Amino acid sequence: MPFDFGPLLPPGTPAPAVRWTGAPKFNFTGGNNDSDEIPLDGLMQAAKSVMAREGRTLSTYGLNSGPQGYRPLRVFLAAKLRRDAAMNCSPDDILIVSGSLQALDLVNAALLTRGDTVLVEQDNYQGTLTRLAKLGVNAVGIPLDEYGMRMDVLEAALAELRTRAIKPKYIYTIPTVQNPTGTILSTERRAQMLKLARDYRVPIFEDDCYADLVWDGIRPNAIHAMSSDENVIHIGSFSKSIAPALRVGFIVAPWSIMSRMLALKTDAGSGALEQMVLAEYCSEHFADHVPALRKGLRRKLDTLMEALNEQFGTAAEFEAPKGGIFLWVKLPDNVDTLMLYQKALAEGVAINPGPEWSTDKAHSSSRMRLCFASPSHDEIKQGIAVLADVCRKEFGVPARSANIERGEK
Amino acid sequence: MPFDFGPLLPPGTPAPAVRWTGAPKFNFTGGNNDSDEIPLDGLMQAAKSVMAREGRTLSTYGLNSGPQGYRPLRVFLAAKLRRDAAMNCSPDDILIVSGSLQALDLVNAALLTRGDTVLVEQDNYQGTLTRLAKLGVNAVGIPLDEYGMRMDVLEAALAELRTRAIKPKYIYTIPTVQNPTGTILSTERRAQMLKLARDYRVPIFEDDCYADLVWDGIRPNAIHAMSSDENVIHIGSFSKSIAPALRVGFIVAPWSIMSRMLALKTDAGSGALEQMVLAEYCSEHFADHVPALRKGLRRKLDTLMEALNEQFGTAAEFEAPKGGIFLWVKLPDNVDTLMLYQKALAEGVAINPGPEWSTDKAHSSSRMRLCFASPSHDEIKQGIAVLADVCRKEFGVPARSANIERGEK
Repeated sequence: MPFDFGPLLPPGTPAPAVRWTGAPKFNFTGGNNDSDEIPLDGLMQAAKSVMAREGRTLSTYGLNSGPQGYRPLRVFLAAKLRRDAAMNCSPDDILIVSGSLQALDLVNAALLTRGDTVLVEQDNYQGTLTRLAKLGVNAVGIPLDEYGMRMDVLEAALAELRTRAIKPKYIYTIPTVQNPTGTILSTERRAQMLKLARDYRVPIFEDDCYADLVWDGIRPNAIHAMSSDENVIHIGSFSKSIAPALRVGFIVAPWSIMSRMLALKTDAGSGALEQMVLAEYCSEHFADHVPALRKGLRRKLDTLMEALNEQFGTAAEFEAPKGGIFLWVKLPDNVDTLMLYQKALAEGVAINPGPEWSTDKAHSSSRMRLCFASPSHDEIKQGIAVLADVCRKEFGVPARSANIERGEK
Repeated sequence: MPFDFGPLLPPGTPAPAVRWTGAPKFNFTGGNNDSDEIPLDGLMQAAKSVMAREGRTLSTYGLNSGPQGYRPLRVFLAAKLRRDAAMNCSPDDILIVSGSLQALDLVNAALLTRGDTVLVEQDNYQGTLTRLAKLGVNAVGIPLDEYGMRMDVLEAALAELRTRAIKPKYIYTIPTVQNPTGTILSTERRAQMLKLARDYRVPIFEDDCYADLVWDGIRPNAIHAMSSDENVIHIGSFSKSIAPALRVGFIVAPWSIMSRMLALKTDAGSGALEQMVLAEYCSEHFADHVPALRKGLRRKLDTLMEALNEQFGTAAEFEAPKGGIFLWVKLPDNVDTLMLYQKALAEGVAINPGPEWSTDKAHSSSRMRLCFASPSHDEIKQGIAVLADVCRKEFGVPARSANIERGEK
């Protein structure tokens, strides 16, 4: 009789995973990228040259660079962050991690304990919200408008928490191509956020993992760059700009908190081969690769928006995002996207239901996130048509007239 | 004025890391490998062929293999574990992780909570002991002899815990080339451990990360292979057999607990490029590479044992390990290896002091672990000479006569 592990599980154990049965046919979820845009020749060249030159250092944990990660990659990042985001940091201020998810975990492990409070954008990255919930941390959601997180509401929330003697541990923001809204926090608001952070002595946790994908390539300076107080922890990733499966991200932070995160990073280093290949590739080609990637993504967004207009008509409301890989869509109020998610998945279409991406379940119940980088143009068109059919069948919207053209084909 | 993160740190925050200032000149610590033994040509060929064939799948988290990791690597492992360890497992029973350190973290996260008790070998891997301490888990150390963990003491400990109504969460063992003692748990004791595990309804956590490095290549069957109860969680690694910096390990476990660990693995997959390169390389070359590596390591062990005999004479006692990359050395009782560690480091020699590698601080206070894979033969000889000088200066041993030959050079 097989051993029963059940009685050994500690309290609060999450639900077990289910067996993976393959990707859905039309996958509008996850931060997957466009396989045609992987710079494969460049990565292969980089692997060859860096392994030939330094491959024997793989015999040592941390290569010859110590626990903060492969130094040439940190050198590249310091220069890139200066050029693109006006950040003033050195390789010693950077910690290479296993994707920005490990960055989230390390920042949270260094700062949070059960019962803490943090401030976050109301519509938010699911991985951030689930981590905070699992840690027993209260995430106060601040609504967004087209210029990003609303500073008037942030100020009111900080003041209200102060009256209750609650000191938030950080203000978490994805300022540049916010997930899921695709907004960019204006420079004026960045300055306001910094002023509030200073006034209330709360650090800012800046998650910039989509910042390379602003359509026109011109992004506001990072909040980290605008601070003179060393009160910003900045994180980023190569998942969106090069390839998600590589699992390489980074943290830029003052040593006073970096040294704490480093003490908590007990994994003997992040994957060295990927760090080496990225450093070798990016130092030569990053600046050329990313504009080409952006163009390809922008075309897919156009295909997605056209498909939505054609299939959903006015039943699907959205603002074109300023960059990135996802679109945040409002459906009619009667559509429950958690239910739509289930029904659509049964037809081979995967979407992200709004309530999993927001602290406000009512606000988000008829919203959904659609990722457009990974499916092909044809898959986008077909998948949105199937989604519209499911939505009509389950919720009566979109009305038949909205997609009459497709019906006539 | 820089922001002060101090007041935000949660209770129990570990000490901050110190700035890395480079590796010590004579490094007898860490699981680093022999840089000459990295199969560089083979890894480069593998990188080229697997990237050319499947590189575009890097656009997708988990490649096309889902959250358990790159399937061809799991196929290789299932065949290898069957061939080398008589294990009966399929690719679906295997989870690829970021080094066996992530395996430790996932097993612990799935099973342990503060106040729990586990049974471990008394002299043990530091990373296991520090993790358990950090989790607030009581690690009951079971002494070892030349055949590994003593089953009579294990049985007594289980019985004693039962009288106190304490149910241990697991029996943790490194049965094949135990860290740090280098012993191999006999087949008879493996059977006894399984019987005890069944009788007391306690699972076994088998850490087999050195099992490829048994000198003669012949290892006992894995405990996992000998169980018919699905009560063994088995972990392993490519760090010792290929290269530590790659950070690829694996867990073999029944789905009832694998599904729990998978739910806790929220890192969006381990590094894909390294999984791909390893699968491509290992399926062709693993069986040839490892025997060559073992020969090289065995030669370094001989150099280390000769150097110890020459420099320390009878003051250094040790049993030749059955494989692996480290030697567990007993110095005279008056030597405090924690102090020796500090003094030797100042002279450029890094050792692992015994008390960091044992649950019994008295037993281990005059013991040390010396890793021999990474330093060259010359570095081993020179480093041990420096260590002997430091030891003599601080503790009066070894006596001058012990290394008279060196003095006469």
